Amino acid sequence: MRILIINPNTTESMTRKVEVVARGAARSDTEIIATNPALGPPSIQGYHDAATCVPHLLEVIKEHPQVDAIIIACFDDTGLDAARCAVDVPVVGIGESAYHVASILANKFSVITTLGRSVPGLEANLQRYGLDQRCARVIATEIPVLKLEENDPATLEKIKGAIRDTIADDMAEAIVLGCAGMTDLMEQLADEFGLPVLDGVTCAVTLVEGLVAAKVKTSKIGGYSFPI
Amino acid sequence: MRILIINPNTTESMTRKVEVVARGAARSDTEIIATNPALGPPSIQGYHDAATCVPHLLEVIKEHPQVDAIIIACFDDTGLDAARCAVDVPVVGIGESAYHVASILANKFSVITTLGRSVPGLEANLQRYGLDQRCARVIATEIPVLKLEENDPATLEKIKGAIRDTIADDMAEAIVLGCAGMTDLMEQLADEFGLPVLDGVTCAVTLVEGLVAAKVKTSKIGGYSFPI
Amino acid sequence: MRILIINPNTTESMTRKVEVVARGAARSDTEIIATNPALGPPSIQGYHDAATCVPHLLEVIKEHPQVDAIIIACFDDTGLDAARCAVDVPVVGIGESAYHVASILANKFSVITTLGRSVPGLEANLQRYGLDQRCARVIATEIPVLKLEENDPATLEKIKGAIRDTIADDMAEAIVLGCAGMTDLMEQLADEFGLPVLDGVTCAVTLVEGLVAAKVKTSKIGGYSFPI
Amino acid sequence: MRILIINPNTTESMTRKVEVVARGAARSDTEIIATNPALGPPSIQGYHDAATCVPHLLEVIKEHPQVDAIIIACFDDTGLDAARCAVDVPVVGIGESAYHVASILANKFSVITTLGRSVPGLEANLQRYGLDQRCARVIATEIPVLKLEENDPATLEKIKGAIRDTIADDMAEAIVLGCAGMTDLMEQLADEFGLPVLDGVTCAVTLVEGLVAAKVKTSKIGGYSFPI
Amino acid sequence: MRILIINPNTTESMTRKVEVVARGAARSDTEIIATNPALGPPSIQGYHDAATCVPHLLEVIKEHPQVDAIIIACFDDTGLDAARCAVDVPVVGIGESAYHVASILANKFSVITTLGRSVPGLEANLQRYGLDQRCARVIATEIPVLKLEENDPATLEKIKGAIRDTIADDMAEAIVLGCAGMTDLMEQLADEFGLPVLDGVTCAVTLVEGLVAAKVKTSKIGGYSFPI
Amino acid sequence: MRILIINPNTTESMTRKVEVVARGAARSDTEIIATNPALGPPSIQGYHDAATCVPHLLEVIKEHPQVDAIIIACFDDTGLDAARCAVDVPVVGIGESAYHVASILANKFSVITTLGRSVPGLEANLQRYGLDQRCARVIATEIPVLKLEENDPATLEKIKGAIRDTIADDMAEAIVLGCAGMTDLMEQLADEFGLPVLDGVTCAVTLVEGLVAAKVKTSKIGGYSFPI
Repeated sequence: MRILIINPNTTESMTRKVEVVARGAARSDTEIIATNPALGPPSIQGYHDAATCVPHLLEVIKEHPQVDAIIIACFDDTGLDAARCAVDVPVVGIGESAYHVASILANKFSVITTLGRSVPGLEANLQRYGLDQRCARVIATEIPVLKLEENDPATLEKIKGAIRDTIADDMAEAIVLGCAGMTDLMEQLADEFGLPVLDGVTCAVTLVEGLVAAKVKTSKIGGYSFPI
Repeated sequence: MRILIINPNTTESMTRKVEVVARGAARSDTEIIATNPALGPPSIQGYHDAATCVPHLLEVIKEHPQVDAIIIACFDDTGLDAARCAVDVPVVGIGESAYHVASILANKFSVITTLGRSVPGLEANLQRYGLDQRCARVIATEIPVLKLEENDPATLEKIKGAIRDTIADDMAEAIVLGCAGMTDLMEQLADEFGLPVLDGVTCAVTLVEGLVAAKVKTSKIGGYSFPI
Repeated sequence: MRILIINPNTTESMTRKVEVVARGAARSDTEIIATNPALGPPSIQGYHDAATCVPHLLEVIKEHPQVDAIIIACFDDTGLDAARCAVDVPVVGIGESAYHVASILANKFSVITTLGRSVPGLEANLQRYGLDQRCARVIATEIPVLKLEENDPATLEKIKGAIRDTIADDMAEAIVLGCAGMTDLMEQLADEFGLPVLDGVTCAVTLVEGLVAAKVKTSKIGGYSFPI
Repeated sequence: MRILIINPNTTESMTRKVEVVARGAARSDTEIIATNPALGPPSIQGYHDAATCVPHLLEVIKEHPQVDAIIIACFDDTGLDAARCAVDVPVVGIGESAYHVASILANKFSVITTLGRSVPGLEANLQRYGLDQRCARVIATEIPVLKLEENDPATLEKIKGAIRDTIADDMAEAIVLGCAGMTDLMEQLADEFGLPVLDGVTCAVTLVEGLVAAKVKTSKIGGYSFPI
Repeated sequence: MRILIINPNTTESMTRKVEVVARGAARSDTEIIATNPALGPPSIQGYHDAATCVPHLLEVIKEHPQVDAIIIACFDDTGLDAARCAVDVPVVGIGESAYHVASILANKFSVITTLGRSVPGLEANLQRYGLDQRCARVIATEIPVLKLEENDPATLEKIKGAIRDTIADDMAEAIVLGCAGMTDLMEQLADEFGLPVLDGVTCAVTLVEGLVAAKVKTSKIGGYSFPI
Repeated sequence: MRILIINPNTTESMTRKVEVVARGAARSDTEIIATNPALGPPSIQGYHDAATCVPHLLEVIKEHPQVDAIIIACFDDTGLDAARCAVDVPVVGIGESAYHVASILANKFSVITTLGRSVPGLEANLQRYGLDQRCARVIATEIPVLKLEENDPATLEKIKGAIRDTIADDMAEAIVLGCAGMTDLMEQLADEFGLPVLDGVTCAVTLVEGLVAAKVKTSKIGGYSFPI
């Protein structure tokens, strides 16, 4: 099967990172096409960036008609509903995928993301998917994305502190990492805290592989019907 | 005060209609600047059209920096959150405005719109604003927009039937007209059924005049902070 | 237009304060009639005081048949549903008005009030209006109303501390001041924290001016139909 | 134990009817004091009547300081929160009592009441108590209260039709009779439809007998603290 | 009347304790039959223990056909829905009973229980009963059950600290003690903090006495119909 | 990978049917172990049957320690929470799986099941998973399970009528078939109505294959921690 995974921003290095994780999670016979639009913002931080990405993302979808499923590889699930109108194959976001998986593995989960300005959009998504009641909290660490790449021990300690706090204060039983830059830390954190630490790209790839195997498609009779 | 009212689609005749209603509702000393993007879909039906409009709508906002408030004149409140990130003046959608007004005038209201494919987006908006519990039902008449312009008695009867049904079945106490083409019918319907029949453009213009008079502005410290 | 603004308690000095704020917010051609009942409790703290005010408030409404809109100037929106049954003009509460405005300017807002005993009633109102999900928290400072008049720096610091905490802990993006005595502090607080700080009287006056301009009225076919 | 049961309207014949049902439901050693205010509306239909009753109801409470529990015998639980502030003994409404009992006996229940204008208030109460999700529907038969006394077969058939419909359409498993005039029909309806048909007075009397026996009291540290 | 009160675990000393409290709460003419299954886990901590108890609990119910009501005396209301299918008399859980009573006495209540692993099940119950919105928090003290029996002052201080915190932080107005071992402390805590402190066994006994007196029964037409 | 799929009732022919569907949905390198307990009810209709199955289901789990994931193959997700306490591999129910998939493919879905008595349990599950707001309706056809095997055209017409109605009345965009006996009809119905028609076994198998591929496990730090 062929999965189109779109990083909706224009930073190709992020696309390559997503591609590596996606290939690592995918079956050997799954073809991963990881790409990003040529135009649009270099990163997505909040509603404004998200909105300007979407038409370019829809263009990318149009340029790849022969795929079996589509993944939107931004944690705010940029343009998810619009993308579902454009095709009849399954379309999932990496945030959405991680939330569904978390709610299957745990009574309550918390999301750890970078900037506070992104939190309202993530909370609105959770409410839209109906999974807000399973989410204990969306936590902004205010760690800049680039800082995450530096392997600074203080940064790691900040993330660990957030996990420790949400387990104690919110009884979170699983952690969703709401930022691609944290992916490397997943196993280490899962081991240290003894709970599921979920990466959206991995969850999305394995979820859509399942949807394609189940031969299910996006509904075309209501809100996701093809545009005229 | 100067209010920028943006029809997010490219059909200028709709912009002119909106302008007429807006001027009719506005104070004599309010300047109404009604416009639409030069690019994008000619009408907005569902998530896909909505998404492709938004960057053009954001361009229009950038081209009008000296306004006191902004109205997005599409009933699905296209790009509302993104627009709020772009400015610090108040920004409202016409759907949003009508829902808030309806919930002040009635215990429960119903929304009457044209196409079924638009309903999930409107329902998602109501949930996002927190007003879904005050909304009895979003009803699609499946009357094509153009049909509304023809003054066909069968069309009018269909709308009346929908109002009659939602009063009887859902105990709706007010009607929100979810389509600009129905605006002419408002007074007639309000008289016949003895209940508020609300038009989004009128509600939005008078609401933002109030917000400007109250000297309030969009919050810039969280999800609506300026993009970098 | 003529707006009747009723302070539901019998403390006339509060009525005069409300009147000043209302006139300051109103258009030059709006007539403000600010009054209070001759009978009833001198202040409203909780459900019991609120209930004993309402019949007197309804009397005041009956004595002013020629008005275009009515504002109930107590933050717990005393007798709002009952008042809506008594007239067909729009009726709003100052709490209700501030909540609606806050939810248009911010993803989440917090309410700062005086006494803890008032909190459950405010929370019940927010739930009734459907806006509880947009409200991060209702915070009681336990500052006595009279203390607010003293301009004690410790009092101001307490309010500032509450704002600081709810921004940090609850990601509140706007503040609703749930107490008339705090009105003087609005601009100062808005400047210091860089977020909307809303006063109910101002929000209510400008909101009903809009409702009257939009020529909308309270629904009379259901729960707000005239009493026999 | 002594239970004060207050019919909040001034129609003494209704008070006597309530008294008969209350005595029939009470233990032999329970003293029932059934009374009504001397002043106020003769019946309660909607928010306006309810509001004008409450101060008189609070007077009645003050006149009976030596009771162990208080029941408010109007189906809209008139003045419940205010009454709880006035005393420290338990206070329940007959609507509230019936809803709690119904949610213990059935997965979902429907409420059958007389006038449509009363429905929004009952729905607001259900939401306030947190039991709206257990309530399938609040149904107005539009049978005038007096008509219920006439034993008209058409009236009975209308009520039966409502029960039949809500079982079929809403999967209701229990019926709450939202009107004192229907009390005589309870056993007959329960037998015919084979489901619990609940009367608020009976539920309230037996519920407060239990609360008094459990030696529990209204909380006095928050929203129900004594008024100053 | 005869009430069957079932401790669903096999620890007979707990059954005897429950029996003492139940007899203390019951009317003099109520017969209390307190028992437990011979088989199953000795205590119930979480979903797994709960599930293994239920068939034995259903056996106990079958062995006692001549009772007027049934109480399930475990705070997680083990097997409540299944038990309701087995009989037509009322069946209540001690957790459920305490939540209903708390929501009648207070605007918001908190639950104090022993182990964190039990919290998700209690939260799921509160949501199922529709009373989660009235519950401020379910707090795990992580005090082992046996520790409670030791009258260790440190244990008591821990419980008091939890009550103090939830009054201050969550505005809880009543406390539900989610653990039988805390029953002795009830009066002391209620006096010290001046708020209702509720024990599930007492609430359940007095509640079902009321249900039996009201002659109401479990609905048999829907989800609780007899098994084939 | 090895997936244990447990039919929680004792009817082996149903286990074989489930096995066929599961093998059809699984990857070629997935080992499906389909089994059922030797003891317990022959079918599960409502809460009572469900409860008596669970300890036997937990025994089956204990007998198969070397599996990578577990599927509970009853549409009411019998014993799901208890099973999650027994292992650390992922555990899903077939109802749960279908609901998650439906909410990814459609704005709203409806569930079609056999008996009305099963509906409250399914609704309670949807609420527990947080997906009730995405479910338009749970519809009981009252077609006995065995009738489904007869290929009676009247039966098929009844199911089609239910689908037609829920598309028209509830704007459902996908159908979840809440009964194994309907599995044969899936493709035919999907083609005829042009919308996703989902079978729980297929959804569950492909979903857990994804969870195992993603190397995620059930959280063991909270409500699903191992029993002592």
